[in-house]
Amino acid sequence: MHQKIKEYIESNRERFLNELFELLRIPSVSADPQYKEAVFKAAYKTAEFLKAAGIQYVEVCPTPGYPVVYGEHLFDPSLPTVLVYGHYDVQPPDPLDLWESGPFDPVVKKTDIHPEGAVFARGACDDKGQFFMHVKAVEAMLATNTMPCNVKFMIEGEEEVGSEHLAWFVANNKEKLKCDTILISDTGILSNETPSICTGLRGLSYVEVEVVGPNRDLHSGLYGGAVPNPINILAKMIASLHDENNRITIPGFYDDVVNLSDEERRLMAEAPHSDEAFKKSIGLKNTWGENGFTTPERTSIRPTLDVNGIWGGYTGEGAKTVIPSKAFAKISMRLVPNQNPDKITRLFSEHFIKIAPDCVSVKVKPHHGGEPYVSPLDSPEYQAASLAMQSTFGKKPVPVRSGGSIPIVSLFERELGVKSILLGFGLDSDAIHSPNEHFGLFNYYIGIETIPYFYQNYVNIKKA
Amino acid sequence: MHQKIKEYIESNRERFLNELFELLRIPSVSADPQYKEAVFKAAYKTAEFLKAAGIQYVEVCPTPGYPVVYGEHLFDPSLPTVLVYGHYDVQPPDPLDLWESGPFDPVVKKTDIHPEGAVFARGACDDKGQFFMHVKAVEAMLATNTMPCNVKFMIEGEEEVGSEHLAWFVANNKEKLKCDTILISDTGILSNETPSICTGLRGLSYVEVEVVGPNRDLHSGLYGGAVPNPINILAKMIASLHDENNRITIPGFYDDVVNLSDEERRLMAEAPHSDEAFKKSIGLKNTWGENGFTTPERTSIRPTLDVNGIWGGYTGEGAKTVIPSKAFAKISMRLVPNQNPDKITRLFSEHFIKIAPDCVSVKVKPHHGGEPYVSPLDSPEYQAASLAMQSTFGKKPVPVRSGGSIPIVSLFERELGVKSILLGFGLDSDAIHSPNEHFGLFNYYIGIETIPYFYQNYVNIKKA
Repeated sequence: MHQKIKEYIESNRERFLNELFELLRIPSVSADPQYKEAVFKAAYKTAEFLKAAGIQYVEVCPTPGYPVVYGEHLFDPSLPTVLVYGHYDVQPPDPLDLWESGPFDPVVKKTDIHPEGAVFARGACDDKGQFFMHVKAVEAMLATNTMPCNVKFMIEGEEEVGSEHLAWFVANNKEKLKCDTILISDTGILSNETPSICTGLRGLSYVEVEVVGPNRDLHSGLYGGAVPNPINILAKMIASLHDENNRITIPGFYDDVVNLSDEERRLMAEAPHSDEAFKKSIGLKNTWGENGFTTPERTSIRPTLDVNGIWGGYTGEGAKTVIPSKAFAKISMRLVPNQNPDKITRLFSEHFIKIAPDCVSVKVKPHHGGEPYVSPLDSPEYQAASLAMQSTFGKKPVPVRSGGSIPIVSLFERELGVKSILLGFGLDSDAIHSPNEHFGLFNYYIGIETIPYFYQNYVNIKKA
Repeated sequence: MHQKIKEYIESNRERFLNELFELLRIPSVSADPQYKEAVFKAAYKTAEFLKAAGIQYVEVCPTPGYPVVYGEHLFDPSLPTVLVYGHYDVQPPDPLDLWESGPFDPVVKKTDIHPEGAVFARGACDDKGQFFMHVKAVEAMLATNTMPCNVKFMIEGEEEVGSEHLAWFVANNKEKLKCDTILISDTGILSNETPSICTGLRGLSYVEVEVVGPNRDLHSGLYGGAVPNPINILAKMIASLHDENNRITIPGFYDDVVNLSDEERRLMAEAPHSDEAFKKSIGLKNTWGENGFTTPERTSIRPTLDVNGIWGGYTGEGAKTVIPSKAFAKISMRLVPNQNPDKITRLFSEHFIKIAPDCVSVKVKPHHGGEPYVSPLDSPEYQAASLAMQSTFGKKPVPVRSGGSIPIVSLFERELGVKSILLGFGLDSDAIHSPNEHFGLFNYYIGIETIPYFYQNYVNIKKA
């Protein structure tokens, strides 16, 4: 089958790219209501592509939020069923001024890491480029009569805002979503020379806080010195959330953290990593993090607390001597097994309100959360993915814990009782969630080729 | 003379108000370049009103920035000359959504403190309403032939951005600006029942800081825990600028502060003040400030450090899991005698850069500064002002140190060798620099009446 797949991809290379461009031109930013119509447009466009790929049955399923695009191609109930998950929504593009080309005007440009070129656009990697590999891979299998099993698609539109209604959708469609495994490409590999498979994900707790001092903006000359400045106080509160070892000070925060054994940490340390290269890649003079842990550990097996946004007072040009009434911050915590997002959000809220001085009032508004996840290396899906990558990359992939969060992975396990396999093809340097997000052509096409091999291997392993 | 003045004001009440409205409708925001034309328009409008008031010679004097409106009415070189200073520029109106009526659509509304109504508009009090009292007062004296001396006007357009070019203008026009005293209404009184005269002003040092972590925005999942988040670090740096007694921690910051004697503090304490009323007026549960000092002391004789604005990361709707590349803050320090703004700005910059961890880079950009000022109570201008207020308010005004800054007062003393008298009529509750700024009709008209009495008293005292 390998030959047929290779040839089909080769002879459709250009079309596969142009079709992805069509999808990338739709600004489906789920976090910002002003893009609402575009998000729906992206859903219908995705459905169109699934039909065009030859999928028997395709449906755009409404939810209380953005729709889920569902598709299924069922040959034989006796064969295994793979459910492909992905998302057609993207992160907001700001800060816009840092994009070298329009976030929704995809272009191919060469980079040091991508000598044969990469697609630059918001969503190029996360996740339009990656879920579209599956659409094209299934098309290739159907067109070459090498589809070895049943396949279902579930492409949602709220991943970047916490998959708010996916739990609702899954709970109400268990029969429809019945499958043997869930295949997801929303993670990355260590490098194009070092393939890897993500075997763990961090969970997420995300809150927005508001600190209120005086009931109106005040003149800093007339009032300065005698009234609580909500910005100064918010800064003090945020500062107190880390101690001198950069450990998070919220009582009980680490209680449920699963600490890795020295042996596990030793194995992790075998994955190639250079702090120098890491620092260079993002222009850092020095790394920063919890004392006693390496950079790969800090970004995977340890929880974090980061301020994702802060605002208050006068932020325009020039100087305004004001003491604002309110200051705000968006704060997120990455969680590791076995931390529970709801519990962590509760602990944060209680602590944050507790440390507020009595001269201000504080509100904490929880955003979405997600549970951490770890997948076993001896599962049929991991074995199938590992073999598939060996065929395309020519070497065995390294199992790696990722720092990111795909909350729905735990949701699927809970609701559908199946494991997910995170077969991602992005790179850390792809700048997802940043200006100039991109996805290597090498990665796009090798993904499209690797996926059919995964199906083949998976069916064989299940048969055995 | 009192009778003539009273009658003239009475018979022109309405026109005096409508003319002020014309001025308030011009959005002369000097801090924001998008209002540039409006600022110039306000200058020419001011000149127009000076001519209409009967001032012999009026000139709009260009500067490298916004023009200074100059006017003079000279009878007799043997008579004293009063120079009126004010500014026609205003603070930015934001946050716009908190205004109950348009910031540049003046309306009269009643409030608890202003039962006979107050003018609501940006600049109503600071400083269009207050400098315009002088235009009308001089008009009244000229119209009733009661002008007892020479008068000059210098109304600038850059006060809210630090009077950037006024020093240049004054230095280049010393002869033109020659005078015996400078009369300024840009401060307030304790209440409409308790007249007061401002005898001291705080200086100002204003900086903008930038903290840079990674060279681009990063995904908080992939990088979180291992990279310096510039917001978290800026928060830590800001937090460290006050100690547990809310004293400023910048080395040398307090070195030049003139500490008041117990006797001086006792006298200060005689001015009526209620912490309860203070808290209630701005909806505070509790005050905040340097330990060991009262609220009036904290806002007048003690220096401060306030963050006037902060921004960084994602501040839009919803949740974006980003670690931003940069975080920013605008920070101002109110200074007291004998602190020097340039020295304090230098001390701040050195300290702020010193406390930055080596994983980030920091920039400090100084904005405008201003020197503190104290005026003697035995000067002819203070005596003249005190007597004038007694005639209109029926009681002797209390000398009060204000927390605000009018940097040019020190400039005038240095360049022109004359003292200024701060005869202001605003109230702390007028919300200057805030949404819904207003100026009481009572205050406006009593100001117009008090000013001519000041001239009369001043000439008599100088003669004696």
